[in-house]
Amino acid sequence: MVCITREECIALDKKDVLASLRDQFDLPPNQIYLDGNSLGVLPKSTRTRLIHVLQEEWGRDLIRSWNTAGWMDMPNRVGDKIARLVGAAPGELIVADSTSVNLYKILSVALKLVLADTPERRTIISDKTMFPSDIYMMESLAKEYQLKLLLVDTANIVDALDDTTALVLLTPVSYLTGEMVDMNEITSAVHSVGGLMLWDLAHSAGAHEVDLNGCNADFAVGCGYKYLNGGPGAPSFVWAHPRHVNRVAQPLTGWLGHAAPFAFDRSYTPAPGIQRYIAGSPPILSMVGLECGVDTMLAAEPFGGMKAIRAKSIELTELFINCVKQFCSEVMEIVSPLDVNKRGSQVCLRFVQAEGNDTYGIVQALIARGIVGDFRAPDILRFGFTPLYTRFVDVFNSVQAIVDVLNTKEYKQQLYQVRAKVT
Amino acid sequence: MVCITREECIALDKKDVLASLRDQFDLPPNQIYLDGNSLGVLPKSTRTRLIHVLQEEWGRDLIRSWNTAGWMDMPNRVGDKIARLVGAAPGELIVADSTSVNLYKILSVALKLVLADTPERRTIISDKTMFPSDIYMMESLAKEYQLKLLLVDTANIVDALDDTTALVLLTPVSYLTGEMVDMNEITSAVHSVGGLMLWDLAHSAGAHEVDLNGCNADFAVGCGYKYLNGGPGAPSFVWAHPRHVNRVAQPLTGWLGHAAPFAFDRSYTPAPGIQRYIAGSPPILSMVGLECGVDTMLAAEPFGGMKAIRAKSIELTELFINCVKQFCSEVMEIVSPLDVNKRGSQVCLRFVQAEGNDTYGIVQALIARGIVGDFRAPDILRFGFTPLYTRFVDVFNSVQAIVDVLNTKEYKQQLYQVRAKVT
Repeated sequence: MVCITREECIALDKKDVLASLRDQFDLPPNQIYLDGNSLGVLPKSTRTRLIHVLQEEWGRDLIRSWNTAGWMDMPNRVGDKIARLVGAAPGELIVADSTSVNLYKILSVALKLVLADTPERRTIISDKTMFPSDIYMMESLAKEYQLKLLLVDTANIVDALDDTTALVLLTPVSYLTGEMVDMNEITSAVHSVGGLMLWDLAHSAGAHEVDLNGCNADFAVGCGYKYLNGGPGAPSFVWAHPRHVNRVAQPLTGWLGHAAPFAFDRSYTPAPGIQRYIAGSPPILSMVGLECGVDTMLAAEPFGGMKAIRAKSIELTELFINCVKQFCSEVMEIVSPLDVNKRGSQVCLRFVQAEGNDTYGIVQALIARGIVGDFRAPDILRFGFTPLYTRFVDVFNSVQAIVDVLNTKEYKQQLYQVRAKVT
Repeated sequence: MVCITREECIALDKKDVLASLRDQFDLPPNQIYLDGNSLGVLPKSTRTRLIHVLQEEWGRDLIRSWNTAGWMDMPNRVGDKIARLVGAAPGELIVADSTSVNLYKILSVALKLVLADTPERRTIISDKTMFPSDIYMMESLAKEYQLKLLLVDTANIVDALDDTTALVLLTPVSYLTGEMVDMNEITSAVHSVGGLMLWDLAHSAGAHEVDLNGCNADFAVGCGYKYLNGGPGAPSFVWAHPRHVNRVAQPLTGWLGHAAPFAFDRSYTPAPGIQRYIAGSPPILSMVGLECGVDTMLAAEPFGGMKAIRAKSIELTELFINCVKQFCSEVMEIVSPLDVNKRGSQVCLRFVQAEGNDTYGIVQALIARGIVGDFRAPDILRFGFTPLYTRFVDVFNSVQAIVDVLNTKEYKQQLYQVRAKVT
């Protein structure tokens, strides 16, 4: 193996076509933040824009701003921007509610569609390691409709399909391992047995190329506060393929999803298109944060957009893996796939000598050194690589910090300190 | 009738025990804002607090702020604050999602509870003039459960009750007319036939005294962006009586409503208590706005709290009605009840000589003069009175402006201008 040096990483940063985009952010001082797959960093524009919204739009123009400042259109306007990142057409995607709530909408609609035509389809299929909200929503709807929920390993999804499959809900990138699946392949397989394919894009939107129309998916939801930098708890987005969107109403029939919300009709008529997936009034302050965040992603379009972002993401994760191999391969197992085509924008490690709460201790000791990653129970160290603001030299320095923490056994000491604080 | 003068109104402001609370707000310049029942004004603290949240909590501490800055507890913390305004105990009320989404939760749960015990109860009863989201949610759930939705006039609610009544959903104050009903009386009547009583507090929380436990209600939801000054589209709140809260799970089974969200279990166990009514991650920027807004209400506690707020609200609406009677009674019909016990914190008028779009024209002409009220189709002029920042002299000046607009027929001209802008 070629030996990697800090100087080589600095040289990579100098050649990086996306390097200038880092300046869009107010990055935390003295930190290398490898947790943008949990909460993206603060764009500089968010502060300026929010102060304007407070003072001019809410503070001065008040109720009129629903029209004059475009608040009412924000779910669609921001939706159209996100659409550009995930292969959806304008008007097909809308911002509303949380990912959990949007999962409920698309699962309910998909089940109604399938069961109306083919009531013999009694199985919902998903992955064992899906994020809890996905599993809980499937579980409760399966109970409601008396269906079977089948959770399998990702590798066995295609084998589990048959003519009793109602729908499949998956995420292209596992939040736990970073494993990535081929959206085309799986969508085709699900369609070939007559089921519907639903995608949760939480770890995909803004992280790698997604082509919802190209892969012919049926429904999708996604998250605003990870790679999209929309801020803590930013609203979520939802997409329905045009062939389905007007067939049934989603169950959360709020007034803003009505065909004519300001007519104040006494009966619900769903709006045509994706507008019907909105329920109540959008939380404007959080919507503003999301729009500023999405704009930081769109700023990459002149430099190659999602294609360039994905290319840099691969380079970053490859570099991280190679550094781990070079500097601490004896004690750190790489849990994420080594094949770049099967890996999202994160790398998960497992400390093979871990005892007790050592893994948690390592994450805490790294944080104390300014390297922010994630602990995922029971024994996963998770590092997210966000190409808009992560440098190659950051990757190199992070692995050096891991090595130092392991050598000094700070993770034992650090754990003690954290515990002392809690009690 | 005694003749009211501007000087008398200024004297009333000098005696007002709540007068100092007006200084909490960044009020729009050169305006009398009588639309706080649609969107409350901007508290001064919101700007300071949001900048802190952006720079220190999100910008610097990032993901750790879920714990260190108390983001994770916000739905409960802000919920406990709102509980103090509506007669709920700490831990009984939580902030989550939009009012529309919370309506879906409580209607679903209430129907499950009723139908499990008494499947013969086949009717949902409500008022004809409820806000559209309430009606649409009842309509779609009635369809789902094959129940009958009976919409009657408020005055006929009690007569409509019988042993087929499953539940009743009402608002204590009509958004359209300002008419107020007695929550004790109606809740008792609904319970006497064995039904469940659900309240939508959109025009009540922060507007008048509400005692959810005292009136023995079953479920309630409410809005954060009206009297609570939480900002555009601020999150909503939901309350379930302790006798019901642990009986069933609400349908939106997101991870944060799980009994142990960070255990990442593969099966949903609802959290004990009101925590189960949360679904996904709370939108923090909007939650911060809501907390600052609710704090402006709690600032009234040393001065008598909701009792003092309601007393001033009655004085304001009485003064408005008396001024209308004194200055333009021939042409302005008072649509809201004249009995203060049957009126919320708003007064609605109807221009008896209205032709075509005159009513809309009056609202626009008033806005041009800096008096912000609301038009509600087809022919209602709606004025909201928010005791925290509305002065008695504002009421007097508003009626003078109405008289001037009527005398000059500016509403015809103004309408023309507005139309010209649109085309």
